[in-house]
Amino acid sequence: MPHLIAVDWGTSSLRGARLDAAGSVLEEKSAPLGILNVPNGDFAHVFDSLFADWMKPAGSVCLISGMAGSRQGWVEAPYVACPAGLDELKKKLHWIEPGRIALVPGLSVEQGDVPDVMRGEEVQIVGGLRLAGISDGLFVLPGTHSKWATVREGRIVGFRTCMTGEFYGLLSQHSILARTLAADATLDEAMFLRGVTRAGNGEGLLHNAFGVRALALFDRLSPSQSASYLSGLLIGEELRHEAPGARDVIAIGAPALTARYALALKSMDVAVRCFGGEATWAGMRALQG
Amino acid sequence: MPHLIAVDWGTSSLRGARLDAAGSVLEEKSAPLGILNVPNGDFAHVFDSLFADWMKPAGSVCLISGMAGSRQGWVEAPYVACPAGLDELKKKLHWIEPGRIALVPGLSVEQGDVPDVMRGEEVQIVGGLRLAGISDGLFVLPGTHSKWATVREGRIVGFRTCMTGEFYGLLSQHSILARTLAADATLDEAMFLRGVTRAGNGEGLLHNAFGVRALALFDRLSPSQSASYLSGLLIGEELRHEAPGARDVIAIGAPALTARYALALKSMDVAVRCFGGEATWAGMRALQG
Repeated sequence: MPHLIAVDWGTSSLRGARLDAAGSVLEEKSAPLGILNVPNGDFAHVFDSLFADWMKPAGSVCLISGMAGSRQGWVEAPYVACPAGLDELKKKLHWIEPGRIALVPGLSVEQGDVPDVMRGEEVQIVGGLRLAGISDGLFVLPGTHSKWATVREGRIVGFRTCMTGEFYGLLSQHSILARTLAADATLDEAMFLRGVTRAGNGEGLLHNAFGVRALALFDRLSPSQSASYLSGLLIGEELRHEAPGARDVIAIGAPALTARYALALKSMDVAVRCFGGEATWAGMRALQG
Repeated sequence: MPHLIAVDWGTSSLRGARLDAAGSVLEEKSAPLGILNVPNGDFAHVFDSLFADWMKPAGSVCLISGMAGSRQGWVEAPYVACPAGLDELKKKLHWIEPGRIALVPGLSVEQGDVPDVMRGEEVQIVGGLRLAGISDGLFVLPGTHSKWATVREGRIVGFRTCMTGEFYGLLSQHSILARTLAADATLDEAMFLRGVTRAGNGEGLLHNAFGVRALALFDRLSPSQSASYLSGLLIGEELRHEAPGARDVIAIGAPALTARYALALKSMDVAVRCFGGEATWAGMRALQG
């Protein structure tokens, strides 16, 4: 099987890897050239400047996941409706150069009269299934917009997005809480778990978030404690809705972030396995295979 | 009884009224001189420049509520702990000039290990009780930070703050939702109520808020519809936690805002009575009497 070039092309940055036939990473590179930062919208030029060398060997194939397939990206690769797994994604690869460069489509799902979407996470989930050696499970991919996906017999049957990371940024930087909060403080695990526990009171984020202000007002939380407590409130609120009754969860993402979810989930007696960037490459390899 | 000068001195602005012995408003004035905008922190100077004329008649008394009594205000008037009503507030008036100018203290309450606070709303609630001719009830004072207060036998026994208005500002102006949302659009009642209903699914604000993005992505919500829908999601989320099982609620605040709460509450078969600025003046008159 020829070498595979795998590219995760997101909103603000991209990263690529050259994989050998066994799926091992031979070389990686990244650049701050997310889809919003592509000069003149010339995606082909950016692609060539970064990956032309890697694509030289005859039979090289490149798969690109993420926002590059969105309406604002290189070419729009329409969402594939859930349930969908490896087979559906392979059938719907959107070829920019047939047999050479393809976009992996994102997934969509309907919940009542409201849709939900993902782009890029589907490849991480496919990879996570391979790495964990399973075909069923509950996945969380934390981030600005966290994704929770349920997999049955290898297919993503449904998923939900939570704006947890974005809410943390808004509240810690732009709200009244910002005045008494050190957003870049290192994690205080006890305060984080106190926030997770507080969220479990079921009294709602709109109310519990004000508690951060009131605690600071009475000098009961320092600025760095406030940051960890708020992070716990938000992740606790997310888990309360997304993981009730779960026994084990697979978390895929940046280690600093999956570690917070693991901490919170373990405090609720939920088992957690974490994967990082390797899940993307494993997913791409599965899509090629 | 001498004339009363009543001043509601908030964070960004203040408004005052001169009341006759019966509590009728003789004259009103307002200024953009909230506690954060007082030149050199010289509160006495600002007070004199605005109200010296009104204070000339012998025996004139001025009561000031709101953030002027906070740590960042004129003088700190310590919070009075709940339960508290007219008697407790009168006893704890914080006199700046004995018999002439006093600050009304705010209220505090403990819920578990987290405090909550209000400053100014306690006067509106005291006034609302008078205007409605009741001594028990559930009050909502919507705003940047909404307050929900439970009154029994004329005393506020507990209250809770929700950051609903601030969340609306953050999400509509600073989040990914801002790209496809017209924050200043006039209310679309049907879309607002659709948001209220959606919040009732109990799936949480972190997830439901992303639905605004996904609906816009599929061209199912226009920018002005998105604003009304998001407002409904937030107020619906607040009501779900604060008014479950309520049969009637008294809303005090700006008419444009209390009208939204009334619309949402009526859709849940909860009766609503609304009061505006007159509640502040009625509360001040009660505190003097």
